[in-house]
Amino acid sequence: MGEKIVIIGGVAAGPKAACRAKRLMPDAEITVVDQDSLISYGGCGIPYFVSGDVSDEKELRSTSFHMLRDERFFREAKGVNVRTGTRAVSIDRKDKVVHVEDVNSGGRDTIRYDKLVLATGSRPNILPVPGNDLNNVFTISSMHPAMAIKDLLARGKVGKAVVIGGGAIGIEMAEALADLWGVETTILEFMPQVLPRIVDATIAGMVENHLRENGVDVITGEGAQSFKDDGNGNVCAVITPNRELEADLVIMAAGVRPRGELAADAGLQVSPFGAIVVNQRMQTSDPSIYAAGDCVETYNLVSGKKAFAPLGSVANRQGRVVADNLAGIPSTFDGVVGSFIMKVFDRCVGATGLSLEVARAEGFDAVGAMSVQSDRAHFFPTQALMFNHLVVDRSSRRVLGLQGFGNMGDGLLARINAAAGLLARKPSISDFSNLELAYAPPFSTAVDVLNAAANIADNLAAGRLRDVGAEEFNAWMEGSSEHPGWAALDLRHPKEAEPFVKAFGDKWVAMVYDQVRENYKKLPNGKTWIIICNAGTRSYEIQTFLKSQGIDNTLVLAGGLNVIRRLGVKWWPGD
Amino acid sequence: MGEKIVIIGGVAAGPKAACRAKRLMPDAEITVVDQDSLISYGGCGIPYFVSGDVSDEKELRSTSFHMLRDERFFREAKGVNVRTGTRAVSIDRKDKVVHVEDVNSGGRDTIRYDKLVLATGSRPNILPVPGNDLNNVFTISSMHPAMAIKDLLARGKVGKAVVIGGGAIGIEMAEALADLWGVETTILEFMPQVLPRIVDATIAGMVENHLRENGVDVITGEGAQSFKDDGNGNVCAVITPNRELEADLVIMAAGVRPRGELAADAGLQVSPFGAIVVNQRMQTSDPSIYAAGDCVETYNLVSGKKAFAPLGSVANRQGRVVADNLAGIPSTFDGVVGSFIMKVFDRCVGATGLSLEVARAEGFDAVGAMSVQSDRAHFFPTQALMFNHLVVDRSSRRVLGLQGFGNMGDGLLARINAAAGLLARKPSISDFSNLELAYAPPFSTAVDVLNAAANIADNLAAGRLRDVGAEEFNAWMEGSSEHPGWAALDLRHPKEAEPFVKAFGDKWVAMVYDQVRENYKKLPNGKTWIIICNAGTRSYEIQTFLKSQGIDNTLVLAGGLNVIRRLGVKWWPGD
Repeated sequence: MGEKIVIIGGVAAGPKAACRAKRLMPDAEITVVDQDSLISYGGCGIPYFVSGDVSDEKELRSTSFHMLRDERFFREAKGVNVRTGTRAVSIDRKDKVVHVEDVNSGGRDTIRYDKLVLATGSRPNILPVPGNDLNNVFTISSMHPAMAIKDLLARGKVGKAVVIGGGAIGIEMAEALADLWGVETTILEFMPQVLPRIVDATIAGMVENHLRENGVDVITGEGAQSFKDDGNGNVCAVITPNRELEADLVIMAAGVRPRGELAADAGLQVSPFGAIVVNQRMQTSDPSIYAAGDCVETYNLVSGKKAFAPLGSVANRQGRVVADNLAGIPSTFDGVVGSFIMKVFDRCVGATGLSLEVARAEGFDAVGAMSVQSDRAHFFPTQALMFNHLVVDRSSRRVLGLQGFGNMGDGLLARINAAAGLLARKPSISDFSNLELAYAPPFSTAVDVLNAAANIADNLAAGRLRDVGAEEFNAWMEGSSEHPGWAALDLRHPKEAEPFVKAFGDKWVAMVYDQVRENYKKLPNGKTWIIICNAGTRSYEIQTFLKSQGIDNTLVLAGGLNVIRRLGVKWWPGD
Repeated sequence: MGEKIVIIGGVAAGPKAACRAKRLMPDAEITVVDQDSLISYGGCGIPYFVSGDVSDEKELRSTSFHMLRDERFFREAKGVNVRTGTRAVSIDRKDKVVHVEDVNSGGRDTIRYDKLVLATGSRPNILPVPGNDLNNVFTISSMHPAMAIKDLLARGKVGKAVVIGGGAIGIEMAEALADLWGVETTILEFMPQVLPRIVDATIAGMVENHLRENGVDVITGEGAQSFKDDGNGNVCAVITPNRELEADLVIMAAGVRPRGELAADAGLQVSPFGAIVVNQRMQTSDPSIYAAGDCVETYNLVSGKKAFAPLGSVANRQGRVVADNLAGIPSTFDGVVGSFIMKVFDRCVGATGLSLEVARAEGFDAVGAMSVQSDRAHFFPTQALMFNHLVVDRSSRRVLGLQGFGNMGDGLLARINAAAGLLARKPSISDFSNLELAYAPPFSTAVDVLNAAANIADNLAAGRLRDVGAEEFNAWMEGSSEHPGWAALDLRHPKEAEPFVKAFGDKWVAMVYDQVRENYKKLPNGKTWIIICNAGTRSYEIQTFLKSQGIDNTLVLAGGLNVIRRLGVKWWPGD
């Protein structure tokens, strides 16, 4: 027998490292321990299990060829020993021994290792508020709460639910509850927007509006103060500073923290946040011990800062790197760019790299270019508007991030993925202008929406395009911000512009795009023109023309009214 | 008035350069000349116009906001003069004058320029065979033949058609004829496969099989010798060395050549192929003359060789670079990687970078890794198998290209685009293994099909995985190649394997994947085992195990039977 390899953790990174290590080192004796009875499940599928898309939890634990990934499977098919229900209590690094405990019997045992892999994962944050231990208050820590929630739903016990946290898991769980089970669901997000730090306010606003269109209430900028007991130990409401939200079910989806305690107790280096510190070969401060998955600290390749990236896909890639290094292959995992995508009812939202807010917080001189155009030829049946928001550093012209919103499908994925590969390599705006995205009318347009975003960013960074974002424009339209000299210059077809001119009087002037060169002198003087069309492209054209005629006090509404429409603003004239 | 800029060519590169130049230099006097009466059309949309998806040719000439891009539009909205029906006859570089001719009146004129842009495009190859001038023999050179073809179809004049050439345009035209108009259509391709040099034989085979499934006949390795006259000057058949194909309509889609004559006649540097030579700023050998689009030579960023890339998307990007440089902005167009995608009925096929065949011809020590897996979580309704074929250089571990096949949708685009951005930068296999594609169950799998392709390539390049391709395997199964020692080792579920064992006797041995570790000693000796499963992953696992037990004479069927099934082989047992 070859080396003894012990792996603590049986989901994602752990099994991946175990199985590849066994293929690379057939002589190795590999043991995976996990305190749970269920292992190697697709945790990202939990919302789809709760929704009912996945009928049986076993589907989340099966291979594509329908074998259940249980202890027997790992032993017989993979040649890997798995001990479930076995909690790692401590690591004795000097003697290279893991002390374990049988979670059912309490019996103690030791497992000797030559190499140890920590894949201890993460745990969900529990809100430190009264009532967090009531019945029917859950976190999604494993398959077990998911099964308990689904059982409650199936027994008709849930009429109203509150999901705490508007991140990806919170939104996915809200959709699962509302769409399939018809539960009256509210998302309560402490930050001023959903998906904070992942996307910027405009894209988040589109997500919030679409959630509301589908019956999910979204309350932002408000936190839970306590969970109310119905008198029988069951939750019946969530209390906030402003309201009481009835709830038969509360899901806390307020982020996760790495499980680094075992490593810290063994004297391994752990970050202030509690994540295990590893080098690019996924080696901890003890060369005999590797770590991978949600429990480790990683590196953001765009910001250059330490990062935490708890994702099943990252965990799998790190697990593979661990296996390589166990076998003497010097593979590295260099860090993450933060690629993200999710379904939200009939839409999808995605991002990679830094949001504008994060980029500015990191000290970049960042601007965001909003590109709005058809994702494919206008005659192709599935054609729909796609919103791409490209974040660039103005002075260096470096691209820092991309986020987008579109109809459900893989079109947005195609742009996020294209950006993801480049972002790790300090790309310039020109790299994105010239990015050779595959083109044919059923898939894209000759100038792809992502190329177009780069072209807009180019014009913004060079100071040729001066724009105003949807938030500021809305605040002006709603009267919550004062811009006395502002007036809208609407370039659209007269039929489109008419209801706006009627509704807003002097504030809203219409002049059709192709008549501006002839008629611009008729525009009243002394205004700051907010130039408006549907997507922003005609507006930019007119901005450059007006500038050439000495009219310099103009701003283009970024992304045009297509953006505003997706935000569900109250001031939109009836049409 | 500022500089006089003259642009020859009114489709794609020309209008793009004109409009951006005008925005950058509002004072410039910009004139576009084109010999055609119709300009600025989306040529890539022609198959969709012929099919009827696009009912009116005007749709291909309209903006997204429904304005027709005609002379009036360019003048009033863009401030650009357009002279249609005006052929550029010659360029007098000394006096900076273009001699033009009115194609209707024959009247001559001259246009003075400070800067000249050549966007003269390409022309389709005409087969040098007797009858190529018969009625109803077309090339797709502009909107006019497309309108003539559609007219023939609408008048019920076309029962049978032959499309010469199995490239993208040929396949798109065949689909348009067969799918929407019910025309009996045959594609005749001189090379041994469709999409030659773009994808390799296996992926091409999937395309051919799917075309046949949809009623389009595909004949490869056979050329047209002549077109037959029905006695009235109309084509009635295509004659090949082996057969006579009846045809009321013949479309020659046998590639295009650059229109470089005007440049060559003016003494500008032109490639042996006839393409205008430009530097990275799209400047010809005369610094006052730029060129862009189908008429120029470009550079393949993967092979490092000169290339010809006649695509509307490339033309638009080059047109923008021309405009920048006209305005003194030092933008560059560095070359192409060859990104490609197309719809084929219910499937799509795409590629970027080099195919295996081309890579080997270019001198690379190339191998191809075939990855076959679900494009998203198995429980998501639109889930389907996707085939990704990654081409890598074995010794340097550099990734050279990717091609794929999948269900119609943007899933394949998402992988092609992800690869495209990286390919220009000499990426390694590890770059693709760790490529951070966005992940969520409705969009992808934790180990994305593209990451998986890189992992397979890693194992191939390292010599850990030894495989056999579908072509060689099929030849053996069909008896056209002799491998006396070969036998299939089928790891699938007994129910899947049974019909094959029955059909092929000793040639086909079944042993379920998870029982090999226990039972491998029962396998007969002296065989070369072709290890078979559905996707190739189980086979690789067993190959490594058998090797560890001293059984080294094994080959994995690359991509498994999922590949074979898509090729529509004759030997497949009835199921």
